[in-house]
Amino acid sequence: MTRTAFFISDGTGITAESLGRSLLAQFENVEIRMITKPYIDSVDKAHQLAAVIASTAARDGEKPIIIDTVVDSEIREVIREAPGFKVDIFSTFLEPLEQELATHSSYSVGRTHAIGSDDVYMDRIHSVHFALDNDDGARTHQYDQADIILVGVSRCGKTPSSLYLALQFGIRAANYPLTEDDLDESGKLKLPKVLEQHRHKLFGLTIDPRRLAAIRHERRPNSRYSSMDQCVQEVTQAEALYRRMHIPFIDTTRFSVEEISTRMIAETGINRRFSPR
Amino acid sequence: MTRTAFFISDGTGITAESLGRSLLAQFENVEIRMITKPYIDSVDKAHQLAAVIASTAARDGEKPIIIDTVVDSEIREVIREAPGFKVDIFSTFLEPLEQELATHSSYSVGRTHAIGSDDVYMDRIHSVHFALDNDDGARTHQYDQADIILVGVSRCGKTPSSLYLALQFGIRAANYPLTEDDLDESGKLKLPKVLEQHRHKLFGLTIDPRRLAAIRHERRPNSRYSSMDQCVQEVTQAEALYRRMHIPFIDTTRFSVEEISTRMIAETGINRRFSPR
Repeated sequence: MTRTAFFISDGTGITAESLGRSLLAQFENVEIRMITKPYIDSVDKAHQLAAVIASTAARDGEKPIIIDTVVDSEIREVIREAPGFKVDIFSTFLEPLEQELATHSSYSVGRTHAIGSDDVYMDRIHSVHFALDNDDGARTHQYDQADIILVGVSRCGKTPSSLYLALQFGIRAANYPLTEDDLDESGKLKLPKVLEQHRHKLFGLTIDPRRLAAIRHERRPNSRYSSMDQCVQEVTQAEALYRRMHIPFIDTTRFSVEEISTRMIAETGINRRFSPR
Repeated sequence: MTRTAFFISDGTGITAESLGRSLLAQFENVEIRMITKPYIDSVDKAHQLAAVIASTAARDGEKPIIIDTVVDSEIREVIREAPGFKVDIFSTFLEPLEQELATHSSYSVGRTHAIGSDDVYMDRIHSVHFALDNDDGARTHQYDQADIILVGVSRCGKTPSSLYLALQFGIRAANYPLTEDDLDESGKLKLPKVLEQHRHKLFGLTIDPRRLAAIRHERRPNSRYSSMDQCVQEVTQAEALYRRMHIPFIDTTRFSVEEISTRMIAETGINRRFSPR
């Protein structure tokens, strides 16, 4: 038996979906089809959606679960009439909060996702372009402006993590690849010269060599680059370097980009320039 | 009078913070300092945090607001004892959901933020590298693999939007700059040749010329590129092209990257390859 869940919002739907998925993830043995409906910002759209919910209920033979963050009371009224099990996030929490804060809340559509100040926008654009310009060791002369410099072997997750830090938190993240070019005479990986004076900004990434081989294989099948031997050796050298130089590091194998990024922030204490919305 | 809000999670804190900010954004006239505390995943950490909450309460002279998504009941118990106004998201909604779904939920730490299948990870990495490889018209021969191709003048927000679509939704987004190189003999902007066969994938961005001039000014101060005249002309040409060619477009001036991206998805109906967590 499959049930359907609707995440409904008058804005992006990010909050409703993120909370809805977290809640429903606790019910592993129920199969739930999840549908996000953002920008339900008019009574007309609400009526159309209510019809979809009604036909879904008829088809499923079960009430859909409705998780919504709609602020406008007229729109909410229409959705409330649709057949469903309602998890009404805002009305559940806003009233007690109004009492606690001894003030009324502003039920204004879209306010929660307003872009904020021009400064936030500029910071974000800057950070994204900083990450791009300083991706994969392309440029090193801006490292004094970096908040953090990610290091690791090729394809261990440096680029997505740098970009996520930039987009979500406005953090200026550069990244630098550890390669065989930096082996010393005895065959041991040494800290690349350009990173020496920025040691306090370094954060290492590591990864299970089997996972790395699979990822590299997608890029260059059956190459030395994607061979198990090569991956084991590079990862071993990188981890040894982190330990020797006391560079904090994280194993990206089991973590999402969100987890990698937020763990780095938690561990280093670097300041976010702004916050996700 | 400033109050403090704590967003507390045993995972990334993204859900607690996103919901918390949405709720508190409804109280414009209350000044609230917001602090996110992710990875509170042990009783020890919970005790430390409870002490911070207590000293914050003493300093503020007001109970902090505590918004949490902690799943583990022992950890939650410790936080519950701290002085604060509690918005306990999971316990508020999980019990009614358990009844509705006629099953127990699995209170497992971190489950909500598990990375999911390897496929999801690969999709994400692919999409990010696709966006990078196809940024700013750098490459055009992969457009048949693109889910969407963003077009617009330089610095109107194409790159951050492409990357957000890739990171959050696994969407393969290329982007192509509209420049004076594509003016025809009569001085009218024409659709670049490489885009012609992909017209159905195009999505336009536009922006207030004053905003554009400010953004470009940060990059190249006092240049023709950042002059008001130049910005007005480029934006006018781009919008005329969108209208002539029936290319859907969005004005990025008042929107965040989240809004731009989710609106594009809502408008075009392109499939996300996975969902944000």
